[in-house]
Amino acid sequence: MSELKNDLYLRALLRQPTERTPIWMMRQAGRYLPEYREVRAQAGDFMALCKNAELACEVTLQPLRRFKLDAAILFSDILTIPDAMGLGLYFETGEGPKFERPLRDVAAIEQLGIPDPEQELRYVMDAVRTIRRELNGQVPLIGFSGSPWTLATYMVEGGSTKNFSEVKKLMFSEPQAMHLLLDKLADSVISYLNAQIAAGAQAVMIFDTWGGVLSPRDYREFSLKYMHKIVAGLTREADGRQVPVTLFTKNGGAWLPAMAETGCDALGVDWTMDLGTARQLVQDKVALQGNMDPSVLYAPPARIEEEVATILASYGHGHGHVFNLGHGIHPGVDPEHALAFIEAVHKLSPAYHQ
Amino acid sequence: MSELKNDLYLRALLRQPTERTPIWMMRQAGRYLPEYREVRAQAGDFMALCKNAELACEVTLQPLRRFKLDAAILFSDILTIPDAMGLGLYFETGEGPKFERPLRDVAAIEQLGIPDPEQELRYVMDAVRTIRRELNGQVPLIGFSGSPWTLATYMVEGGSTKNFSEVKKLMFSEPQAMHLLLDKLADSVISYLNAQIAAGAQAVMIFDTWGGVLSPRDYREFSLKYMHKIVAGLTREADGRQVPVTLFTKNGGAWLPAMAETGCDALGVDWTMDLGTARQLVQDKVALQGNMDPSVLYAPPARIEEEVATILASYGHGHGHVFNLGHGIHPGVDPEHALAFIEAVHKLSPAYHQ
Repeated sequence: MSELKNDLYLRALLRQPTERTPIWMMRQAGRYLPEYREVRAQAGDFMALCKNAELACEVTLQPLRRFKLDAAILFSDILTIPDAMGLGLYFETGEGPKFERPLRDVAAIEQLGIPDPEQELRYVMDAVRTIRRELNGQVPLIGFSGSPWTLATYMVEGGSTKNFSEVKKLMFSEPQAMHLLLDKLADSVISYLNAQIAAGAQAVMIFDTWGGVLSPRDYREFSLKYMHKIVAGLTREADGRQVPVTLFTKNGGAWLPAMAETGCDALGVDWTMDLGTARQLVQDKVALQGNMDPSVLYAPPARIEEEVATILASYGHGHGHVFNLGHGIHPGVDPEHALAFIEAVHKLSPAYHQ
Repeated sequence: MSELKNDLYLRALLRQPTERTPIWMMRQAGRYLPEYREVRAQAGDFMALCKNAELACEVTLQPLRRFKLDAAILFSDILTIPDAMGLGLYFETGEGPKFERPLRDVAAIEQLGIPDPEQELRYVMDAVRTIRRELNGQVPLIGFSGSPWTLATYMVEGGSTKNFSEVKKLMFSEPQAMHLLLDKLADSVISYLNAQIAAGAQAVMIFDTWGGVLSPRDYREFSLKYMHKIVAGLTREADGRQVPVTLFTKNGGAWLPAMAETGCDALGVDWTMDLGTARQLVQDKVALQGNMDPSVLYAPPARIEEEVATILASYGHGHGHVFNLGHGIHPGVDPEHALAFIEAVHKLSPAYHQ
């Protein structure tokens, strides 16, 4: 493996000194980039793009050619595990992800197996290997997975949902069946992320997109518990370097202290909490990633720079901050505005690391 | 006006002693009731039902015939004000509310007028008068409005939205235009709610459904500020009784202390924060309404009663709690489960008021 030329992201996640705040953007390989839309059209549907290692590598690298980003993230989908379990993932235009065979009863949950990452999910590992090779040590590669709770919401609902009625019906009426499902998913995520690490991922992130729709008690029982199990089961070293683990529960600001107790290295923070408040809550026990509202990228560059300044000041002096958006970049954003955002972090953050 | 026979709800909102915890349910007049679906089918579309005072009164009273509820809430929509401003509200089946003429530029905002509640919104006042007469003092009648920020999201987006891209584009790019819109909406809400109070509403509630998608700074500047203005402008007494004001920002748990400073009497709390935590945050300065996850109503009655017990214990002893769901009741809920919920509050709450 070639030597890592820029390890700012890894150092920040481990709260080691850095000369400036590293930055990457969730969904940085995405529809806001015309070069992405071109490859996407060439690939056909979204999953075809994920399943083609060369094309997945190409779109992963595209934002790095435009912007001074400090990490690459594997181009894939959070629902690859349920797909590998046999639920039949597909995408309808403008409708988000759907499953041909959603989970609807306990029997179906009992029959689910744990996918073998080098078999049913080999296309993901091939993408990781290809990207890692092509990155050639430029920046670290982030692997990722959905959280068990978040995967379960899509599996039981059969797709995106507004009210989470079906998954909560299962959770409140048959909690044991729900726990069986979540435990199988946690085991699958452990094996999946460890395979990504073996294939070359230098950090991993767990996206708990829907943990924020739970009550504090239900969050601890049905989401956090399984992320905790995952963190405990992950390989934490590769190539003689630590592999940092980041957890991100959207709308989970109130639970940051509990999340920090899982043994993870960093927490993602959305924009509904000031980063300074978040830092106080976790008392520098973990690093923090975030947290600009992605919609600020619709504003003129001067307004974007102002927001970057506010967020840097909110986190304050010292290490352990990875700049990011609080959620994925929106498809309608002008790439020039993303550039202004990234440049503002490069320009303004060194003052906080002296 | 006939004398009020059950004023538990009003007393609890003013943190006066009550012998048990009062209860009502957001969207208690709704699709989960077969008798509602019948009247709805008879009326034709949703707005036709809102605009017919007799039918709006009928569906308002339906849940009170089935359940021992401590308040009635005006049957109407939160988007009546934008409709009265000329945006053309309509409902597409399964798609939620839409506007024929969404706001798309500063010129359109400048042209907006403040609706006269006894003219363009007379159908709402007629419904209030009819319901108040038919209630005959059984329980108090709650009037309501959407918050300026929440109304603005629908007006600018033209309907429901996932990313709030258009309204945030306006907010971040043309903050002055946004403030002009929000100020006109605040004036409209003041005049609308004062007219509801004059027509017979005995308490009012402001629904800030989408305040939770903002950052703390943006929430204070674009949502809370205008709710504050509204609270200051409301008539606070009618029929020799105080008219309590409740503010509810969904996903706004972190902002309860700031909301309590507006001069309102009570705050709605969703299920993403324990009620005991919320009570600590507001230090009994205001009453609290909430906060069961509406999806718990999918569970068997024993599980529902268990959740009621947990929430009552979380709030603890003392007055100032109005039991409710943390959001509207879902259309798929079995009315027998709603009954179990309401009976559990009647059975378990007196112990907390001794």
